[in-house]
Amino acid sequence: MNRSTGKQQEKATEAFEMSPSRFSELLEKKAILQDWGGHDDFFRFTTNVGRIDEGSVLIREEDGFEVIQGFPKIKRAIMLAPALESHFEGISSVIVEEKMNGYNVRVIEHKDKLVAFTRSGHVCPYSSDRANRLLERDFFNDHPEYVVYGEMAGPDNPYVPKDIYGVDSLEFFVFDIRYKDGGTMPVHNRRKLAEECGFTQVELLGEFALSGAADRIREIIAELGKTEHEGVVIKDPAMVLQPLKYTSSQSNCADLRHGFRFYNESGKDYLFARVVREGFQSVEWGESEEDIRERCLRLGESILRPMRESILHVQGGERLWEDVRIRVTDESTIDMFRMYLERLGLDVIFGTPERVGDEYMVNIRKMNKSTTDKTLGIIEGQLWS
Amino acid sequence: MNRSTGKQQEKATEAFEMSPSRFSELLEKKAILQDWGGHDDFFRFTTNVGRIDEGSVLIREEDGFEVIQGFPKIKRAIMLAPALESHFEGISSVIVEEKMNGYNVRVIEHKDKLVAFTRSGHVCPYSSDRANRLLERDFFNDHPEYVVYGEMAGPDNPYVPKDIYGVDSLEFFVFDIRYKDGGTMPVHNRRKLAEECGFTQVELLGEFALSGAADRIREIIAELGKTEHEGVVIKDPAMVLQPLKYTSSQSNCADLRHGFRFYNESGKDYLFARVVREGFQSVEWGESEEDIRERCLRLGESILRPMRESILHVQGGERLWEDVRIRVTDESTIDMFRMYLERLGLDVIFGTPERVGDEYMVNIRKMNKSTTDKTLGIIEGQLWS
Repeated sequence: MNRSTGKQQEKATEAFEMSPSRFSELLEKKAILQDWGGHDDFFRFTTNVGRIDEGSVLIREEDGFEVIQGFPKIKRAIMLAPALESHFEGISSVIVEEKMNGYNVRVIEHKDKLVAFTRSGHVCPYSSDRANRLLERDFFNDHPEYVVYGEMAGPDNPYVPKDIYGVDSLEFFVFDIRYKDGGTMPVHNRRKLAEECGFTQVELLGEFALSGAADRIREIIAELGKTEHEGVVIKDPAMVLQPLKYTSSQSNCADLRHGFRFYNESGKDYLFARVVREGFQSVEWGESEEDIRERCLRLGESILRPMRESILHVQGGERLWEDVRIRVTDESTIDMFRMYLERLGLDVIFGTPERVGDEYMVNIRKMNKSTTDKTLGIIEGQLWS
Repeated sequence: MNRSTGKQQEKATEAFEMSPSRFSELLEKKAILQDWGGHDDFFRFTTNVGRIDEGSVLIREEDGFEVIQGFPKIKRAIMLAPALESHFEGISSVIVEEKMNGYNVRVIEHKDKLVAFTRSGHVCPYSSDRANRLLERDFFNDHPEYVVYGEMAGPDNPYVPKDIYGVDSLEFFVFDIRYKDGGTMPVHNRRKLAEECGFTQVELLGEFALSGAADRIREIIAELGKTEHEGVVIKDPAMVLQPLKYTSSQSNCADLRHGFRFYNESGKDYLFARVVREGFQSVEWGESEEDIRERCLRLGESILRPMRESILHVQGGERLWEDVRIRVTDESTIDMFRMYLERLGLDVIFGTPERVGDEYMVNIRKMNKSTTDKTLGIIEGQLWS
């Protein structure tokens, strides 16, 4: 059943009371902004509006409006055992799935093509190209009422390239399927549905009685950490309570290494939060003096070594950048993606597309102007005010 | 010569063009705020106004106004050698004095008493009591045109208690003498004048040719760091160019240890700046692999160990606080100081004054409510949003 068919009055009620006058009002207040990538009928919410979250998408159709809810930010357990106990109070077991380190997108079908939205509600040209390549369209034809949520992970990833997932290029790992208005689906139903449709999914790591879950998750996290896998998402099987995330120390430290490499670009809140996690994990895990010392060294090295490398690099006369890579089916995606990144404020240099099988591979150099300039300034004697 | 005598019109010109109408205007705009510690004729600048810096003090007198300039923030060298070269270009030598770890105040005489202002222009009752005890009043009688700048350092220090200076209680270490309007005095003149008046001064560590200064300062810093002394201030002997500061890794790490003990109270900019210094110092000093590893461990331990201690402390059912101590001559200072700290937003518990010689010693417990509450919340399962 397609929820977006029917008369405009019906749709307005279903889709969060959206009406033409409300639409004009939101546009005027800049609570919604038109997509600038060619989808003139797509608008993203720049702020929360009633029940509609920031990052949600409004689609203007001939006969009314449709709202695709944003993906709710998953809250984080800092101290695992008490967080599980308090957050999942009243349910008997939790399901643990892997939290993958990529970037997350929502996918819907629109006018016979799949469209991938980022967390903030932008249409990402690269992710949309990849979704059309990686996902079976039949599912979306059969289920227009659903939005498919997944993590784009692998080396051909312009945001968070990772080689740890045994993926050659990029894979879309489904971790949720919801109704467009945000309504959820129990985990087992979702996994079954996704499997039937041939979707790749995030790994199911187990279902545990709540009482013993913290210990089991700690073992899983220790294991995942060894290969720098990020962590887990812990879910109410019925998906009534919101999921929680918890991450490995190695992943925190990997984030810090990346963050301090570009220390003047990274947000201080981002860096600080990762440091605080280490403190609480160390206490909760009742570490030995030797463990503590090792964690201190790991933390210190995750901060200082990448900074040192960046400084030495700039001292050597180079600028700082990060090389990433994409692989697309449709050559026109390359230009669209470059414009998209530039519009987001990134300073990028695209290499020459290279034909690989039936696809095009392109290297992208993301320039870190802020950290380069700051470092260069200090090397030349600039003071810290 | 007292610059503040003479007719009002003359004073208005001298004292930064201050006039009754200008005064009213500044008061209305809240660019100046009246002191709330009983000095109704003292006003502090909450913002820069023309040539007058934030933190400057305006004194309303019967026949006009007097402005005591704020102490200019001393800029910091991050990479020492190029900073010296660029900042002190054109002079042949620099003077290096110790930068002490206390808190800095400006002292003037007003109505036969010494008054100490904090950096933000508040009259600090404790510092004023101490200034009257520690400083010879004759100097101020003889030189009403001067402001004496010094670091209050030692264990009886409500802000930064330190045992490293061989001081029993608290000492006022003069590091600058300026004219009330901000005019500077050459370093040698100031040291001579202060010595003649019997003032205790910050230590003179040497005068070095600019070309070799970075190496000499590095040796000094390495030496100071061994006893966790903070660092140095590097000055143009003529005091025409502004001074520069540079600190030891051990002092950066001591700041981090204190900062992470109260991680939810400490500013992220404060913590971040100290971490960045470590990266640049490590590169500039051309450290060996072993030095780097040691610095990484020291950094990691300065972050994680105090956090762990705070978490364990709260897990043990305690709140977090910091005990400091003051020693005053005048018993009424105790109440005034408590009101002053409370007005600044601190949560303090004053102990019973104890008579020590002709003075009163009081323990003060500064409660760290924010970090206590945050830690307690996380221990009870609160999530990080």
